[in-house]
Amino acid sequence: MNNEFIKLIDILGTVAFAVSGIFAAMRKRLDVFGVLIIAFVTAVGGGTVRDMMIGDLPVSWIRSMNYVIIIVLTVAVVILFKRTIHNFKKTLMVFDSIGLGFFTILGLEKGIIMGLEPGICIALGTITACFGGIIRDISVNNIPLIFEKEIYATACIIGGSVYMLLLQTGININIIEAICILLVVITRLLAVKFDWRLPTIYNNVHDTDK
Amino acid sequence: MNNEFIKLIDILGTVAFAVSGIFAAMRKRLDVFGVLIIAFVTAVGGGTVRDMMIGDLPVSWIRSMNYVIIIVLTVAVVILFKRTIHNFKKTLMVFDSIGLGFFTILGLEKGIIMGLEPGICIALGTITACFGGIIRDISVNNIPLIFEKEIYATACIIGGSVYMLLLQTGININIIEAICILLVVITRLLAVKFDWRLPTIYNNVHDTDK
Amino acid sequence: MNNEFIKLIDILGTVAFAVSGIFAAMRKRLDVFGVLIIAFVTAVGGGTVRDMMIGDLPVSWIRSMNYVIIIVLTVAVVILFKRTIHNFKKTLMVFDSIGLGFFTILGLEKGIIMGLEPGICIALGTITACFGGIIRDISVNNIPLIFEKEIYATACIIGGSVYMLLLQTGININIIEAICILLVVITRLLAVKFDWRLPTIYNNVHDTDK
Repeated sequence: MNNEFIKLIDILGTVAFAVSGIFAAMRKRLDVFGVLIIAFVTAVGGGTVRDMMIGDLPVSWIRSMNYVIIIVLTVAVVILFKRTIHNFKKTLMVFDSIGLGFFTILGLEKGIIMGLEPGICIALGTITACFGGIIRDISVNNIPLIFEKEIYATACIIGGSVYMLLLQTGININIIEAICILLVVITRLLAVKFDWRLPTIYNNVHDTDK
Repeated sequence: MNNEFIKLIDILGTVAFAVSGIFAAMRKRLDVFGVLIIAFVTAVGGGTVRDMMIGDLPVSWIRSMNYVIIIVLTVAVVILFKRTIHNFKKTLMVFDSIGLGFFTILGLEKGIIMGLEPGICIALGTITACFGGIIRDISVNNIPLIFEKEIYATACIIGGSVYMLLLQTGININIIEAICILLVVITRLLAVKFDWRLPTIYNNVHDTDK
Repeated sequence: MNNEFIKLIDILGTVAFAVSGIFAAMRKRLDVFGVLIIAFVTAVGGGTVRDMMIGDLPVSWIRSMNYVIIIVLTVAVVILFKRTIHNFKKTLMVFDSIGLGFFTILGLEKGIIMGLEPGICIALGTITACFGGIIRDISVNNIPLIFEKEIYATACIIGGSVYMLLLQTGININIIEAICILLVVITRLLAVKFDWRLPTIYNNVHDTDK
């Protein structure tokens, strides 16, 4: 949890979620400010909810121009190069997964720094990672990815739990971070590719909305 | 407002809303983690919004593992015994009403402890009670119960107002709490059963979305 | 930014957004408490999110009965006089625009008072102005106005940027406020009337949801 590494994780996660927001907005053909706003709420939404809940106020993006600048630059670059991208939905999915990995670890470590219990830290990491995407999907009127059939929040919970276990082993913290970020990203991407689902808990038909 | 009684009300309200969230999620056939997440946001959503607004940070569920443990246990028990339950929608409705009663009084008392004005306390109780359910219903893509035709938030406002009046009488506080919780629950359940509605404010046709 | 003037802006913005909420709720034929709740969340939603993010807690509407009283009175007056109003949708639109102007400047000035950077102040003003309407539209199940084709958040960003520029000129602050509020309101109203849109960023067809 050295400070420079946390900042790097934060920047990479912000860029990844901003990109996922841009493609979600472009699929709905929003104008350039609409794209910017969706990119912004996706990138800072999870961290904002986290900071408001733990009381780390004002929330991160208000304290410096860094987030605003990073997001505006990301929007500019993506719009310039969008001709070369041929599948908006897949691009959104990949960057959403990458953001998920970075922000799980970021939220979890903020919990550890505050001295919260391990289970709470994992929940905080999961919420940090999932909330930006939920806000993005509700905003553009999609069904949130988190409620699709494939493994989603489960990937964050797995990554967070492994982090907590590895922390007991004395392995270098930057290596643990790298392992767990990769674990979340790869679990989610494989889940989408191979349609991984948890075993069903429904063995008989009750009244459902189907 | 003795402290042990408040804790009991909090636990019972948490369980009731968790159960309502579980059945909302099971009607959509979410996987086990999806069910857990909906149970969680339903149970802690109202209290989280309340704590963030009054500045009691970090919010309650972050300060101890109790909420996480209670919700995980509730999910485990309900999934084990779900075979014996035949009407998910009605079960959701009943537990939503019970949670409504507990959380109205809980939010209201937190306002009183903070020395807020009576009207604000009633608003705070109503928000605490209604918000978890709103988040639940938006998450699973249902129209929020609060906006259905029958009396809903009105039950919280009635219960809260009676509480404030009884507080002037010197009746034992635990009795007042019990009366007002029952008042909210019964008002809501009877409203659903007998289709109680407030008198309409519409006497002529303007442009509506119908 | 003299204090009396800020209070006046706050009251006028609260009334304007409450009226927009009332008409959004009446188009869905909600009962009187439903109308009150939508009016309330629309009027206080943006300021609540702003205060929670910057850590000015408890949030404004909790600190005094003023907001609750203003909103209840607004609901009473509008319901009494609603017979004389013939186009709910247009009325909603006009009051939404007025609220947008007042709350952009209010949020922006709260940022300046806190010593935040100009870009953050503009973002804070835009969020304050837009969030109440987003909550209103999601609550009554409309597509948020902010995501319609015509200029919306862009009007707030323009008004906020002009405010920041004029602040350098030494013009009387109350005049700057009046200019920028009018600028936001008129930009938005003209955008709706003449269907103003930003130039498209889409020059070729990718996979969209259309």
